[in-house]
Amino acid sequence: MKIALPQINYYVGNISRNCEAIIAAIQKAKSQKADLVVFPEHAICGAYPQDLLEKEYFVNDCRLAIEKIAAQCDTIAAIVGAPNLDLEDGILYNAVFFMYGREVRGGVNKCILSDYDTLDESRYFIADEENNALFYQQQRIRVLFDEYEANAIQKNDDIIIHVGVTPFTRENIRYRHDTFADIARKHGKTVISLNHVGANGSLLFDGNTFVFNEKGELCLQLSAFEEDFAVVDSRKLKPIPDKVADAQDIAVLHDALIRGIRDFFHKNNFKKAILGLSGGIDSAVVAALAAEALGASNVLGILMPSKFSTDHSVTDAEDLVKNLGINSEMFPIKDMYDSFLNTLHPMFKDLPFNVAEENLQARVRGVLLMAISNKFGHILLNTSNKSEAAVGYGTLYGDMCGSLSVLGDVYKTEVYQLARYLNREKEVIPVNTITKAPSAELRPGQKDQDSLPDYETLDKILKLYLEDNRSRKEIIAQGFPVETVERVFTLVNRCEYKRAQCPPILKVSKKAFGHGRRMPLTYQI
Amino acid sequence: MKIALPQINYYVGNISRNCEAIIAAIQKAKSQKADLVVFPEHAICGAYPQDLLEKEYFVNDCRLAIEKIAAQCDTIAAIVGAPNLDLEDGILYNAVFFMYGREVRGGVNKCILSDYDTLDESRYFIADEENNALFYQQQRIRVLFDEYEANAIQKNDDIIIHVGVTPFTRENIRYRHDTFADIARKHGKTVISLNHVGANGSLLFDGNTFVFNEKGELCLQLSAFEEDFAVVDSRKLKPIPDKVADAQDIAVLHDALIRGIRDFFHKNNFKKAILGLSGGIDSAVVAALAAEALGASNVLGILMPSKFSTDHSVTDAEDLVKNLGINSEMFPIKDMYDSFLNTLHPMFKDLPFNVAEENLQARVRGVLLMAISNKFGHILLNTSNKSEAAVGYGTLYGDMCGSLSVLGDVYKTEVYQLARYLNREKEVIPVNTITKAPSAELRPGQKDQDSLPDYETLDKILKLYLEDNRSRKEIIAQGFPVETVERVFTLVNRCEYKRAQCPPILKVSKKAFGHGRRMPLTYQI
Repeated sequence: MKIALPQINYYVGNISRNCEAIIAAIQKAKSQKADLVVFPEHAICGAYPQDLLEKEYFVNDCRLAIEKIAAQCDTIAAIVGAPNLDLEDGILYNAVFFMYGREVRGGVNKCILSDYDTLDESRYFIADEENNALFYQQQRIRVLFDEYEANAIQKNDDIIIHVGVTPFTRENIRYRHDTFADIARKHGKTVISLNHVGANGSLLFDGNTFVFNEKGELCLQLSAFEEDFAVVDSRKLKPIPDKVADAQDIAVLHDALIRGIRDFFHKNNFKKAILGLSGGIDSAVVAALAAEALGASNVLGILMPSKFSTDHSVTDAEDLVKNLGINSEMFPIKDMYDSFLNTLHPMFKDLPFNVAEENLQARVRGVLLMAISNKFGHILLNTSNKSEAAVGYGTLYGDMCGSLSVLGDVYKTEVYQLARYLNREKEVIPVNTITKAPSAELRPGQKDQDSLPDYETLDKILKLYLEDNRSRKEIIAQGFPVETVERVFTLVNRCEYKRAQCPPILKVSKKAFGHGRRMPLTYQI
Repeated sequence: MKIALPQINYYVGNISRNCEAIIAAIQKAKSQKADLVVFPEHAICGAYPQDLLEKEYFVNDCRLAIEKIAAQCDTIAAIVGAPNLDLEDGILYNAVFFMYGREVRGGVNKCILSDYDTLDESRYFIADEENNALFYQQQRIRVLFDEYEANAIQKNDDIIIHVGVTPFTRENIRYRHDTFADIARKHGKTVISLNHVGANGSLLFDGNTFVFNEKGELCLQLSAFEEDFAVVDSRKLKPIPDKVADAQDIAVLHDALIRGIRDFFHKNNFKKAILGLSGGIDSAVVAALAAEALGASNVLGILMPSKFSTDHSVTDAEDLVKNLGINSEMFPIKDMYDSFLNTLHPMFKDLPFNVAEENLQARVRGVLLMAISNKFGHILLNTSNKSEAAVGYGTLYGDMCGSLSVLGDVYKTEVYQLARYLNREKEVIPVNTITKAPSAELRPGQKDQDSLPDYETLDKILKLYLEDNRSRKEIIAQGFPVETVERVFTLVNRCEYKRAQCPPILKVSKKAFGHGRRMPLTYQI
């Protein structure tokens, strides 16, 4: 059987656009003489529709789109993901519809719902009791929504199609490859594992549609982070070399962030980005990624030095602007900062300089950036990293402003890896930006490491706590200093209120701040 | 059987504190010769622990607390809510433990999990298959986690205890009363419906523990929004008059918000609040509520007039300060505003005044408030209302700043009702603040109604869309003008990004912005 595998960048909630893309892919599949074309779960509504599914009219519109698509399936069969409302009992299933001969002929509903991290399927769907095979051209097709449904596979199934999609994490490409290769090998069946591609807000989908033969050998891999299309003949699969990306692969992280920025702008009809350039590594890396994603001429860097800024903070930022070819402006913040202090003097009197004045500088910068953003329609990119966000090393309404956090799920040590990767061919990130000690420059001689553990240690502790849910005791047992572990836990726990107001973060790890991590605002543990 | 019903203000994640409160209540129950004392679901960990439940050590600590409490149960039995980890198969249940003779003797696990609005039980728990009765002193006790489990009730049950708790909404008190009165009547059994009391972040619990006799007559109602304690003899219940609050009751809304502010400060060890006073109704009502919740001397109002502020904006705010007896300071924003405009002039040149300058004023105010907050440790209260939050009528990092949004789930028309309620005995909110046309005063002569439908209409449309999930078509069919409905939908849909960064909102309706409403950042519907 010739099966077409369109790998599409779907738009959340934009049923008509997704429907058009699906119909175009069906035409292409027909022109290539495919027998069957497959679109994964949520193809009609994009991933994830979230509470749009609670709107009856939205679910109805999804169904109308399915009927429209079925009308295109004359010489071809299609499997298309969409919510399936059982009109008799009002139950909503996460489903794929099966259609041929210009009609919907059935489908498959998901039997084991996913409720973890960013996924809330039990909020919307009921799990179906049985996974039914589909039949077409004497082939028995087994549709799986995820690996946990693999026990539904039967001896007489001819082909397994995995239609469930999973948000990108750095670990997930290898995991999905290995999991479905194993299923193919164990059951001795051809397995196709589909995916969406592209970003919708915080969530990325990496593409990488896979086809395995019955020995579990990889026979097809579609592009990563790009739309793609292939037709495979399930009877004529030939192994290809495994070049599947591993979790450590910095190029994949880079490509993911580029896709995330690009789709955030493109899908929202934004064109130009603005960001503050401090001369530090975080803003430099975000600027470089934005220039690559949007084009250098669409990126505007704003230098906002203060009296605490070192000389190199300006020269490093200027070198970056030159290296990238982006636009820039410089607005020293002294006048505005002084004007706030003068206004507040009757109240602040001679109280010592403290976090109020530090944050004030960051907030003056935030206001400047937002004013330019509002005046010219540029979208503000946030430049905080995950290590900072974890320990609360950032100013709410200051450097925590922005429409999208590019590095909010990237630890500081990984930001350095990204910088070196960006410099793989020529200097993009100024070398001094990489080699100098990181500093917020909000008071004289300040360095991050004055108040934080070194980032190598910090990031390891954070990962154990945030991603692996390890306790203080367990982390200390791994050899980290007691006081450091205690301090990191305290900092993380007391800053939930800050993260509650941070911009949407491009999720690249198995546990990002945001929708997938749900903590009480305050707690004592 | 004499049953003690402690209605406790639990702290999320603070196991040791909750454990102490429970043990103190057990001592009190023993001193009053109770046979049984009941603590509802999540008593040990507070509602709701959220992803704390994903930490193995947290669940273990809950279990240790249960053992400690059981050791107190010598002459009394206790039912205590806590997560129940089945060590054999690693399954976590939402449970109550049953203990007497100083030991845990069993318990009941929840059988139908809740996954809607703010609740994500399938994320953490597995539903148990069977609801087992508990036996004590020849009594057969049926424990229900919610009304959907009522079909577990059997003829030979002696008493029904509802241990599930539900976040406060204005509709919920009456709903819970009627639902469990019905269950009592239908099954001819005594029914006790427990609840937590107090606020944890956004979520409130109203208390109002109910006891119904087998005719469904109300025989006991504990306090609303206050801790309480009672011992009832299940064989000697006498009906009392039904004074249960209805959804329209503005006093309940008032009391809920007071509790929310008070617990937010108290549980986080905050003492003093700060807020901006514009002379408008929203900030006036928040100031009055804060003064009542925290004491007038703990509230600091900041007046920040601009050249667009009308005279009455200052005089109305001053009258409010006088009426409430709170502290205040005035800082005109002119110098700071001008300093930003001067700095930006090389870039803005002679481009016309627009949203950039409007937002700039709001942001200068936000920075001033945050500077004072940082300097003196006062906590900034946000004053946006639900109508504004819905249509995006607010400035990110400006008037959308704050640690807690007091009115973010209160429509503008309800803010007026609150103002009149606050004035029920004497003028608290200046009459001119109530009678004048609402305005953001960010440009000359601006009025809210220049760009928004009148609030009576707006709030009705918003309620139909946000809370009832009605479509444009259905709302228009109810007689609202097509253009108004279209405009409201557009405004709501395009402002998800703003609400994604707003402060935590005290939830008082069945659908508040925040954790219980999960929408994609952008969508086309």
